[in-house]
Amino acid sequence: MASTNPTRGMRDFLPADVRKRNYVIGIIKSVYESYGFEPLETPSVENLETLMGKYGDEGNQLVFKILKRGEKLDLESATKESDLSDLALRYDLTVPLARVVANNKNDLPKFFKRYQIQPVWRADRPARGRFREFYQCDVDAIGSSSMVVEGELMSAVSDILKRLGFTDFTIRLNHRQVLTDILDTAGVPEELHTDALVAIDKLDKIGADGVATELSERGISDEASTMLLGIFAETQEILNQEKDINRTIVANLINIVSNETLTELGQILKFADKAPILIDPSLARGLSYYTGAIMEITVPDLAGSLGGGGRYDGLIGMFGKEQIPACGFSLGLERILVVMDEKNMFPPEIADSTPADVLVTIWNEESILASLKLAAEFRKHRLRVTVYPEADKLGKQFKYADTIGVPYVCVAGDDEIKAGKVKLKNMKTGEESMLSLKDVASNIKI
Amino acid sequence: MASTNPTRGMRDFLPADVRKRNYVIGIIKSVYESYGFEPLETPSVENLETLMGKYGDEGNQLVFKILKRGEKLDLESATKESDLSDLALRYDLTVPLARVVANNKNDLPKFFKRYQIQPVWRADRPARGRFREFYQCDVDAIGSSSMVVEGELMSAVSDILKRLGFTDFTIRLNHRQVLTDILDTAGVPEELHTDALVAIDKLDKIGADGVATELSERGISDEASTMLLGIFAETQEILNQEKDINRTIVANLINIVSNETLTELGQILKFADKAPILIDPSLARGLSYYTGAIMEITVPDLAGSLGGGGRYDGLIGMFGKEQIPACGFSLGLERILVVMDEKNMFPPEIADSTPADVLVTIWNEESILASLKLAAEFRKHRLRVTVYPEADKLGKQFKYADTIGVPYVCVAGDDEIKAGKVKLKNMKTGEESMLSLKDVASNIKI
Repeated sequence: MASTNPTRGMRDFLPADVRKRNYVIGIIKSVYESYGFEPLETPSVENLETLMGKYGDEGNQLVFKILKRGEKLDLESATKESDLSDLALRYDLTVPLARVVANNKNDLPKFFKRYQIQPVWRADRPARGRFREFYQCDVDAIGSSSMVVEGELMSAVSDILKRLGFTDFTIRLNHRQVLTDILDTAGVPEELHTDALVAIDKLDKIGADGVATELSERGISDEASTMLLGIFAETQEILNQEKDINRTIVANLINIVSNETLTELGQILKFADKAPILIDPSLARGLSYYTGAIMEITVPDLAGSLGGGGRYDGLIGMFGKEQIPACGFSLGLERILVVMDEKNMFPPEIADSTPADVLVTIWNEESILASLKLAAEFRKHRLRVTVYPEADKLGKQFKYADTIGVPYVCVAGDDEIKAGKVKLKNMKTGEESMLSLKDVASNIKI
Repeated sequence: MASTNPTRGMRDFLPADVRKRNYVIGIIKSVYESYGFEPLETPSVENLETLMGKYGDEGNQLVFKILKRGEKLDLESATKESDLSDLALRYDLTVPLARVVANNKNDLPKFFKRYQIQPVWRADRPARGRFREFYQCDVDAIGSSSMVVEGELMSAVSDILKRLGFTDFTIRLNHRQVLTDILDTAGVPEELHTDALVAIDKLDKIGADGVATELSERGISDEASTMLLGIFAETQEILNQEKDINRTIVANLINIVSNETLTELGQILKFADKAPILIDPSLARGLSYYTGAIMEITVPDLAGSLGGGGRYDGLIGMFGKEQIPACGFSLGLERILVVMDEKNMFPPEIADSTPADVLVTIWNEESILASLKLAAEFRKHRLRVTVYPEADKLGKQFKYADTIGVPYVCVAGDDEIKAGKVKLKNMKTGEESMLSLKDVASNIKI
């Protein structure tokens, strides 16, 4: 018999899981909407050519590809993957957004602010907290180069995390131009910048020695490497200090980084003055399409980040005739849930939720209709009501009520029905009361 | 340059679309929860072997299959599809449910009532109203053979359609045993029952003559075919009458169908007495896994149905050691939306929704921070606020506000800021008022 487990790296979400996920998604939506962002949804499946070449070589490998169908599938003459596949599963929400913006140029407002909360798929090796199907919660503002955009994005993301109960997160902020200027200063040749960034992106994970080795492997001179890591070590020292960190870091960069770039960073700090932002010149971010500010959110005790983003003024131009500036941020739902679960951050009505407020028992075959009518009456009072589906021993019905955790059980036996009353039991206190029909709903406290 | 359209048969949902979809989904969720159904979500991707053989030959062809990855993909020795593919996209929500129930037997309550609203994928030829990615809204009750289950499902589905504003829908009800008994009576041999059902399922689409031809092609004798279609013609006449239709149909079936089956149909009618149910002995439903009651919802002016379902007491046993009775119903979100769009059934707050309640303008570079603080203040009053992202001519900012349809625009110029006031313009009436900060929020009527 075939396995009944979900496929490798993917998960079934039972009701308690779904409620937690929906609680977090609800807060994310609500905050983004309070900032004027609108919902967008795109298909799970994209044409393969839409995705290929957007995520680097490693990304191309991780895209799930869909087999051609019917006559299109010519097994005999196929010599490579692209002969067999024409479609692929969505890998992120940014590339589909760029496609949608290019496709709907005339119907969208000149500043298009959208959020999108949907799953993406990556054929990665599954590991703790790393899945092959996972949700991204993206927010992007299209059409403006103003740092107001970065400021509002950081404020919104910060509002979300505070409303979810996070108190000790940090938004690390950097700028691609800062990195470029540092690489230039250190003497890394321009054609090796991308290689250097890939190595620097691992500073957190493999440390300065590891990065030095990788830089060397990627053909960067020892001299440039030493200077580069020296600059990051200096800022790391500042990061370890206590106060006025951003000001000190900026002062430290004045001789390396252009005024224009430092002004942009300064504006973001000013416009998002309630968000806990820390300038970190060593923040690199893996994706190659970023062109300006880049950010990443970290919390103590969690390897990796809760989300990240940045400005990508060149990506939409890859799909349309026009270059359109854009900036966005992606929150990782799965990481947020892991932390919230570990730290018991869910409110009781989510953590202890039940399938119904009250269970209506069935006394016997003849009284089924009476029980169903009772349930319908309770629903009119906005109660969630589950009816035991069969005539059964009352003890078994109470046991079932206990298993599913409903707080109240309602019994309508022959005597009660005749008297126009029902018995209501509070499952927590054990208290029972005989009530007339019209009083039951108001006696159920939820 | 590659096409920027979504891939064939799939759709991008712009904000106005998403709001309509979420409105319908919200009502469906709310009603199902009021009946004690709990949310479940399963992965979009299943192991290929989980899906194969569950949907008939035609279904197998329509499943989107995912290409094997890395070393698993051996192009040279591959001779058939199954050598190339190990995973597939979800084809419906019933088979994944059966897998989940078998997999979590010990953790789920003995009656498990779940709803699930997720997309499914079918490599069908796209047509008007038929997509390759579409949402199903499923509700299923696992663990009971009682007709209370069918009754509650029909009541819940009927509640949903009424709350959405449907007034003229019909729930057609039949029973697989009714069909079996009719086929036996007409003399169709048991081994041809499935073939006959596939043909009968098309009665609406291709008429009695078409069905007769197909029955003949499938090896059913002219005699049996004539008798079969005669029985359905008789009930069709009754269906065309006005009153007591169900009673007349049942009376008509008494000599053909067993008492037990008629009792079950009678119970469903009684338990779902508020739902507009019509017994239709010719309703067949395509899927082979149904074992008892089957239902389908039709509305005038719509070919096909808004949804359908039935009892399938054998399916879960295909995944686990145990046979567990089950009954479910699936609403088709896309069909519901088509009808609601055509008949303008969305309430104004959904049909005319806007991205924000108020737009805050930017007077000049120096006042950006003041505008952002104003927006933050409004958000505290639960308003949805969008800030124009750049210092720009005021006329252009108002034009943008008009384009996106925000009902109010707030201007905080130098003079206003000095006086601790802002100018608020009602975009519908054109009325402008100068207000102190604390009065603005209460003057915005949404």
